[in-house]
Amino acid sequence: MEKIKRNDRVAAISKILSSHPNRIFTLSHFSQMFNTAKSTISEDIAIIKKAINHFSLGDIETVAGAAGGIRYQVSPSYDHSREFVEDLCEKLSESQRLLPGGFLYMNDIIHKPETIRDIGQILASSFKDKELDFILTVETKGIPVALMTAHFLGCPLVVARKKGNVTEGPNVSINYATATSGRLETMYLSKKAIEGYKRALIIDDFMRGGGTAKGMQELLKEFSIDIVGVGVVIATSEPKAKLVDDYFSLVELVSVDQEKKRIEISPSRWFSNKI
Amino acid sequence: MEKIKRNDRVAAISKILSSHPNRIFTLSHFSQMFNTAKSTISEDIAIIKKAINHFSLGDIETVAGAAGGIRYQVSPSYDHSREFVEDLCEKLSESQRLLPGGFLYMNDIIHKPETIRDIGQILASSFKDKELDFILTVETKGIPVALMTAHFLGCPLVVARKKGNVTEGPNVSINYATATSGRLETMYLSKKAIEGYKRALIIDDFMRGGGTAKGMQELLKEFSIDIVGVGVVIATSEPKAKLVDDYFSLVELVSVDQEKKRIEISPSRWFSNKI
Repeated sequence: MEKIKRNDRVAAISKILSSHPNRIFTLSHFSQMFNTAKSTISEDIAIIKKAINHFSLGDIETVAGAAGGIRYQVSPSYDHSREFVEDLCEKLSESQRLLPGGFLYMNDIIHKPETIRDIGQILASSFKDKELDFILTVETKGIPVALMTAHFLGCPLVVARKKGNVTEGPNVSINYATATSGRLETMYLSKKAIEGYKRALIIDDFMRGGGTAKGMQELLKEFSIDIVGVGVVIATSEPKAKLVDDYFSLVELVSVDQEKKRIEISPSRWFSNKI
Repeated sequence: MEKIKRNDRVAAISKILSSHPNRIFTLSHFSQMFNTAKSTISEDIAIIKKAINHFSLGDIETVAGAAGGIRYQVSPSYDHSREFVEDLCEKLSESQRLLPGGFLYMNDIIHKPETIRDIGQILASSFKDKELDFILTVETKGIPVALMTAHFLGCPLVVARKKGNVTEGPNVSINYATATSGRLETMYLSKKAIEGYKRALIIDDFMRGGGTAKGMQELLKEFSIDIVGVGVVIATSEPKAKLVDDYFSLVELVSVDQEKKRIEISPSRWFSNKI
């Protein structure tokens, strides 16, 4: 490449920023990379910001202060999120998803990059103003959802286990009751995994009674870690009173009729009360 | 935005392509989005391709044919990958990672977006020429690695379970022996999860004897699914003869001296024999 032009810098910076959501890059970083004045980089970034805002592709935020710089943040538009959530409801209500016991098969949805990215973006953007050190989930089905949310928030993921594991070092464990299994279960959290952390966001795929989320809250209490929020993909309408006070969900599972093979699922209140 | 200029299109297209690795976009898609001639979009894309190639940020590939278009592919440079792998070795050989039984604590590495993205990119780029329908891993620690690889290859993830689960529908199970536990274990694969798929890539975090990878191969055989490759983050030097014939790894765990608290770990042969 003979001479690096504005177009080239715009292409490269747009790529770099959006591949590292929430990571702060200094202007000097790009100034050195392109051997160009910071003022020129500032103009490049203004162009990128305007373009990705215009097409609802996210936002570029300027962070002031000594550790300041610019960062890319996901911010899916309400319309896009709502459309995605409505589409998700349609997919989730397909009768062939119904499994014995009234469970829903949803692994194809939470394991497909195209969908899990949208889910992660919506969850990340609803908690993006919270200060947090890490995301906590519990194995197994919460992991993809939580990892994509962590990717978009640029923070580490910690996975609580249902069985102590030799590769995690010393654990703290608690017992918790889930509405799904109706049994008392045990959850383990590695002490090494949360060393030095103070604030956590809890992410999971599904919430019925809230027992699992409550279990994660109890685990975090053992380490005096604050909980900044709870986010799930699906919450059930019943029981209305969950064991956790406050949570965010994308969709609400209203009812499952096993005999008629009918699944009623609708956008959660975050995506249904605005028109 | 009054008039959309080349810079704006370049910023937006670069963002969109790199957020959807391996997904094919038609020129018409962008042509409609920006209300511009396809020839203009072609020029925009040539600029983006040149810039991201120049800065080793990946590649834009043109796919011919009726379903053709353009797609972004990760292609970390050998130097970048080698540097990352060397850094990984340094981190993994810190003596405080040593756990009783000679196990290594590595969750902080495989659960951090910055590292897991690099790992996913390296794994994805080493299998990017293979035709595959999905990635298979087994719970729990393989999931983040496998999901990021799936993200960069743009294919779905399937997770085999160590316990049958009510939310996965009918399963096929096999027994397998692992060198780590020294016991016979059972692995379950949901039939619904692999419906219609023919070719799989196996991804896991760690390989000692290869028993777990072999288990996944056996599971796939039950469904007549071809295996296009096996990729792991860490493979041990011993035993040299693994239960799977062929695999790719980032680093090699040479030895662990529990008494002297010394971990010897080095870049795998893919990152050590070229200078």
